[in-house]
Amino acid sequence: MENALQYSRDNFDRSVTELIDFLKIPSISTNPESAPDVRRAAEWMADHLRSLGIQKVELMETPGHPIIYAEHLVDASAPTILVYGHYDVQPPDPLELWDSPPFEPIVKNGNLYARGSCDDKGQVFMHAKAAEAFMQTSGTLPLNVKYIIEGEEENGSVNLPAFLNEHKDLLAADVVVVSDTALFGDGVPAITYGLRGLSYVEVTLTGPDRDLHSGIYGGAIHNPINELARLIAGLHDDDHNVSIPGFYDNVVPLSDDERSTFASLPFNDQEWIEDVGVSKARTAKGYSVLEATTARPALDCNGIWGGYINDGAKTVLPSKASAKISARLVPNQTPDEITDKIRAYFEHNCPETMTVSVKDLHGGHGIVVNTDSPAMSAASQAMEAVFGEKPYFTRTGGSIPVVADFKKILGLDTVLFGFGLDSDAIHSPNERFGLDRFQAGIESIIRFMQIYSGK
Amino acid sequence: MENALQYSRDNFDRSVTELIDFLKIPSISTNPESAPDVRRAAEWMADHLRSLGIQKVELMETPGHPIIYAEHLVDASAPTILVYGHYDVQPPDPLELWDSPPFEPIVKNGNLYARGSCDDKGQVFMHAKAAEAFMQTSGTLPLNVKYIIEGEEENGSVNLPAFLNEHKDLLAADVVVVSDTALFGDGVPAITYGLRGLSYVEVTLTGPDRDLHSGIYGGAIHNPINELARLIAGLHDDDHNVSIPGFYDNVVPLSDDERSTFASLPFNDQEWIEDVGVSKARTAKGYSVLEATTARPALDCNGIWGGYINDGAKTVLPSKASAKISARLVPNQTPDEITDKIRAYFEHNCPETMTVSVKDLHGGHGIVVNTDSPAMSAASQAMEAVFGEKPYFTRTGGSIPVVADFKKILGLDTVLFGFGLDSDAIHSPNERFGLDRFQAGIESIIRFMQIYSGK
Repeated sequence: MENALQYSRDNFDRSVTELIDFLKIPSISTNPESAPDVRRAAEWMADHLRSLGIQKVELMETPGHPIIYAEHLVDASAPTILVYGHYDVQPPDPLELWDSPPFEPIVKNGNLYARGSCDDKGQVFMHAKAAEAFMQTSGTLPLNVKYIIEGEEENGSVNLPAFLNEHKDLLAADVVVVSDTALFGDGVPAITYGLRGLSYVEVTLTGPDRDLHSGIYGGAIHNPINELARLIAGLHDDDHNVSIPGFYDNVVPLSDDERSTFASLPFNDQEWIEDVGVSKARTAKGYSVLEATTARPALDCNGIWGGYINDGAKTVLPSKASAKISARLVPNQTPDEITDKIRAYFEHNCPETMTVSVKDLHGGHGIVVNTDSPAMSAASQAMEAVFGEKPYFTRTGGSIPVVADFKKILGLDTVLFGFGLDSDAIHSPNERFGLDRFQAGIESIIRFMQIYSGK
Repeated sequence: MENALQYSRDNFDRSVTELIDFLKIPSISTNPESAPDVRRAAEWMADHLRSLGIQKVELMETPGHPIIYAEHLVDASAPTILVYGHYDVQPPDPLELWDSPPFEPIVKNGNLYARGSCDDKGQVFMHAKAAEAFMQTSGTLPLNVKYIIEGEEENGSVNLPAFLNEHKDLLAADVVVVSDTALFGDGVPAITYGLRGLSYVEVTLTGPDRDLHSGIYGGAIHNPINELARLIAGLHDDDHNVSIPGFYDNVVPLSDDERSTFASLPFNDQEWIEDVGVSKARTAKGYSVLEATTARPALDCNGIWGGYINDGAKTVLPSKASAKISARLVPNQTPDEITDKIRAYFEHNCPETMTVSVKDLHGGHGIVVNTDSPAMSAASQAMEAVFGEKPYFTRTGGSIPVVADFKKILGLDTVLFGFGLDSDAIHSPNERFGLDRFQAGIESIIRFMQIYSGK
């Protein structure tokens, strides 16, 4: 293993150069016009895995973008890990806020800037580099590894559950390993044991059957923008609790123990506030920032549009107004339940002058995994060796709905073994990944593979 | 005059063909890329006036789009009318709702469909055709006529007040005539004596200094979309009165006489509701649709945008959210006063977690003109002769801010002599102008010129 670690250090610059090539491909899965680039990214990664000597590498077709399946099986008696990641990326807009173009990666102050550098191309590439280090120094891997790297994570992994169901035998393993989460802070290792779920809808209110002149009609038309605003304003009470009836019905309350653990974590509200660039946080009454962003549900507008939105002063009363609205869920809320409750809220409160449609765009279950398993223990030891301190077990507010799918469909727990930082600006302009964390990730994965193999 | 009327009828088809050429030019004044087309429309109209034998026709430059000035002076002792109109048009979006392309005019069921067909190219062109009828049949006009046809009416006539100030002598006249308003109904003539004013702002709320991932940050960030929605929801009370402090302070209340007149007009709420395609009207409590849309102030959102507004489910907490908001004003509200009160509302209610900017985009005074003048009388007689019944004197809810400028700067009253219909869908997809009304307008203008000349 020491040889593999040394190899990864000696070949680090080349690894970064290769990652830059991968990041140049604008594999935006939600954008239909980007489909050829999404496929190109899949082919690039598959070719790269082949070049490392991985036994079997295939692009497996889905109704959407292809899934890369790869495996390297060394010993039927050794444990098998299933590495999951994704080669697609978020849309880069708003483009004008990037300091350098999102698909022209650039290294600045030790960070690699590009869309996908952290989420998730950079992190999935660490797994390839860890495998390469073993292959080049010992000609094999210390355990059996299977990889599934999909191209639709940023579009709700819409075809992955069917794929998992169809290939249960192929994907048999002992544990899933995913590097798509963050450290607790720079140099502060953490293993994520809880994720929030997601319920994401698009709401459209329709009033008059066409846009109308505000001079001729203004004063007697119920305006869909004003009314959508009223409905959105009613989503929260004055204490910033969600007002949708039944929203909290199934929420598992935080125990006193959990709240003590949260309070003991090295988290500084003031630094968080400064990083985000706001004057203060806004949490539901009684909850800390860390609790509110990781272990409590939340509801937010992600987008809104209606009427005239270009330059100048068009005097129109719009026919329609729309918003994208999503809830972050915690156990035991389910996406179906919450989407139904959001829909009921809008339908119940839609005024008689309008019609409302609520479209279900995306959903995923929240999850909390057991922290006592052999794989979690191996991950913890690996991180401790690399970072010089034991990792915290933490929860994160993001959603990786596939983690719930791995449990439900394959019966597997997941080790969330991530090396990002909350300040990496994933999903935002100027996404970045620290090169020191890229290397620490590779070394942590090498150590994890060795320790978990039991050799 | 009878010869001129007959000429206009005999040459009607050619007039429509010429108007179609004019309508093909996409002279969208608010769109910077359309500037060459806006100028092309000005040149087309100027060339056309020259071809009619009008003595003097000039394009006069402004800091924005040029103003066409033309004059035909026949007798120093005759009255002088100043015809005002505009050759620019509203943006055509949303394009997908047009049944035929907005700049490919088409005649269907007696209506001419195109952006600008009614507002205002079609109506300004009636004045050209009335002049042509006199010139071709008598070689002259019955009175002195000056024309100013501007290219920025749909962009707030931003350069017109300075132009009026600079050319007071050139523009000296007895009365202004504007054809940019509507009949009371199909075949029901009306002369507009009141217009509402306008105060139009763009409000932007800014929270965090960048877009954030809703998973990582959701639950502790005050969201600018949700907060803008709350502020918009607070603009009206439950009775649909405007809640902005002081909004009604200077409103001249409707007298009992005025309310009786409104009640006597041939206006059917149910037909209005069906035309607009809503299930019911929404007026401030106690006011009829006609009062609420023409003689009482109103406040509406004209546009809203923020966050992710394309296809799919991007999980972003936006840094900003914006809305276009405008008030329709009645005497004696002023645009400065109301813009200040709107600004104060947003600044006062902006939460401490955000900053707000309120940009003044456009303003214009409402006006009510005297209905007893010789010009109003001539217009009334002309319409009665063409339509077979006396026109109603009515108010309209739209704004023609220049009418207030003509009074303030040139000291002139305006006759609002319009032939549109509220159902012409001006500012909306499928704008149209009835060809019967195009002809009735030409004949009404011919008669008005003859009667007002006193000959």
